[in-house]
Amino acid sequence: MKKGNHTVLNQTFSVPFRYPVYFDENIFDKENTLLADTLKGDKIPKIYVVIDQGVSDAHPDLLDKIHTYASAFSDLFVLATDPLIVPGGEQSKNDQKSFQQILDATSEFGIDRHSFIIGIGGGAVLDMVGFAAAIAHRGIRHIRIPTTVLSQNDSGVGVKNGINAYGKKNYLGTFVPPYAVINDFTFLQTLDDRDWRSGISEAIKVGLIKDATFFAWIASNAKALANREQAPMETLIIKCAEMHLAHIGGKDPFETGSSRPLDFGHWAAHKLEHLTGYQVRHGEAVAIGIALDSTYSYLKDMISQEDLHQIVSVIDTLGFELYVPELSGEMLLKGLEEFREHLGGELTIMLLEELGKGVEVHEMDTELILQAVEKLKMFQLKRQGA
Amino acid sequence: MKKGNHTVLNQTFSVPFRYPVYFDENIFDKENTLLADTLKGDKIPKIYVVIDQGVSDAHPDLLDKIHTYASAFSDLFVLATDPLIVPGGEQSKNDQKSFQQILDATSEFGIDRHSFIIGIGGGAVLDMVGFAAAIAHRGIRHIRIPTTVLSQNDSGVGVKNGINAYGKKNYLGTFVPPYAVINDFTFLQTLDDRDWRSGISEAIKVGLIKDATFFAWIASNAKALANREQAPMETLIIKCAEMHLAHIGGKDPFETGSSRPLDFGHWAAHKLEHLTGYQVRHGEAVAIGIALDSTYSYLKDMISQEDLHQIVSVIDTLGFELYVPELSGEMLLKGLEEFREHLGGELTIMLLEELGKGVEVHEMDTELILQAVEKLKMFQLKRQGA
Repeated sequence: MKKGNHTVLNQTFSVPFRYPVYFDENIFDKENTLLADTLKGDKIPKIYVVIDQGVSDAHPDLLDKIHTYASAFSDLFVLATDPLIVPGGEQSKNDQKSFQQILDATSEFGIDRHSFIIGIGGGAVLDMVGFAAAIAHRGIRHIRIPTTVLSQNDSGVGVKNGINAYGKKNYLGTFVPPYAVINDFTFLQTLDDRDWRSGISEAIKVGLIKDATFFAWIASNAKALANREQAPMETLIIKCAEMHLAHIGGKDPFETGSSRPLDFGHWAAHKLEHLTGYQVRHGEAVAIGIALDSTYSYLKDMISQEDLHQIVSVIDTLGFELYVPELSGEMLLKGLEEFREHLGGELTIMLLEELGKGVEVHEMDTELILQAVEKLKMFQLKRQGA
Repeated sequence: MKKGNHTVLNQTFSVPFRYPVYFDENIFDKENTLLADTLKGDKIPKIYVVIDQGVSDAHPDLLDKIHTYASAFSDLFVLATDPLIVPGGEQSKNDQKSFQQILDATSEFGIDRHSFIIGIGGGAVLDMVGFAAAIAHRGIRHIRIPTTVLSQNDSGVGVKNGINAYGKKNYLGTFVPPYAVINDFTFLQTLDDRDWRSGISEAIKVGLIKDATFFAWIASNAKALANREQAPMETLIIKCAEMHLAHIGGKDPFETGSSRPLDFGHWAAHKLEHLTGYQVRHGEAVAIGIALDSTYSYLKDMISQEDLHQIVSVIDTLGFELYVPELSGEMLLKGLEEFREHLGGELTIMLLEELGKGVEVHEMDTELILQAVEKLKMFQLKRQGA
């Protein structure tokens, strides 16, 4: 062993991951065996359930139903203790109280790798529960039951989890696939209009950058979706989740590379959410971000005026705002600079080269961004005038 | 979408992992480019270094050397701030202060996915640093520089990290491969005799269950190893690390299954460490655990008396105790029961069916365990009389 003449062993291996994403309804009805079948194994596992308070408030019978369901399938699994109810939304990720409560419970009730932790709720709660499950015992099996449009078609079916820290979103977290995802469409019925709508922007996003047919389908179903028709929403969620899963499974599930091609419309959205103290919800901010980057793409002669008007019309028909006063040009340019830093110095932004086809660019024209903001203001004025 | 007639999308993907494990010396000499080459990339990354206090105490010039090294390679990387020195051993994993300090530093100094966190120290410190690196930004690139025999040949080259919580070892942690491992043999020279010796028991373990030739090599080099000869120790470390890496990469890197075939000698060792408040070190406890399970294997007519005496003689020659008073039969049976619970109800214990070949059993004979303890007592008396 000489200096400069070291020995090296190269460790290489591949880890296969597999999980089912189910779409069903009334999953806590005794007649529905999907969840019980998912929990079935050689031994009777202990189950620890965490519920988003927004969900338990909207479904006051949920706790009873879970207890009844557990009694009906007591030969297959057992509740370790009563479900824990945690505040929903970003609060569950900001304040580490719920996160700590879950870790404490794993120790107190002996929830280990032979058990399951089940999260029921919106994306934020699922992220937080998933992170606790990922690190206790180096990973407890975790089942996600997303209850919002956004979590059912996007965040809830993926492999990321996390909590906020140091004032930064998702500062602490891991990439750990869930054991299973069970989307229950029944929960969509009690969403307020903003939450129902919000999740649709991720579907618009994937349609615009990857699948013109899906975007056209959304355009022709925009009124029905705005009217809260259940059937097209279920179709939209399944299609959008399918595309999201394909993207995750495609190239770089744990994001070791720097590029994030699915982030169309997101750079401005992140800044906007932050500027409004999360009063503008993620999906609402993404809708505005999509409108902005589409307008920029038009100003760059990448898509036609007709294309742009169709995009803006879909967003408008669904009931999204197209502009909010916090979105000043100055703030946007600041946000772009922050995004560049976040990416480690080199900017990567997804734009549109046609409907259904995104393209990555590494520079943006400051003047055209400011012009795009002015155009959004006008779209919004027209919208309010209509 | 009908009840009991759900839609399912099956997500499957494989994630490839690759990392080099280097063996070298004097890695912080300016003339040695190994570390600098490892950090080289498109951009100049920020480096955050965490050092085990045991190491910095034994090498008072280490901090200066790191600064000099960083100056010499300022075109390749930059130190984000002064290295953090943390208490070594289990304390670094028990008290979450150091862990929290590292997370704080990632936020304060902008250590992100484009940066590196480097841990220098024994296995406990590396585990703790690795866990912080694994969860900040969902994973900062992490380089391990193990400084003890045990961490260089076993714990430091693997994919686990973690800290203790709720009084339980490694209660919080993840499976995340390091970016690279750089073993620097120079650090071995300042280890105290107990630490020098302790790491050897993992080599005895893999030899006994997997490679009779390696065990025979250890037997014939036991005296030289006990005399702290550097050359055989380097050979032992490289061979043992190689077998450990092969085991990890072999079947189930992230331990999704329940079996842990490399845990020969470990069930009793864990109990013993705990009973002595970690006064008996991991490697010392494993040596006794190996002696116990080998004796049990002999009493079960699985290996010959000659085999057993060779095993005991190697352990003895290396300077390990063969028995400590805390290892009562009663405590051992309690430990076995705890291990059974830890495995979720079904016991899996590795025993020897010949030198170089382990075999898994799912039951142990209480009476023979007690007899094995008595035999160890006698071996120890003979040892002390010698």
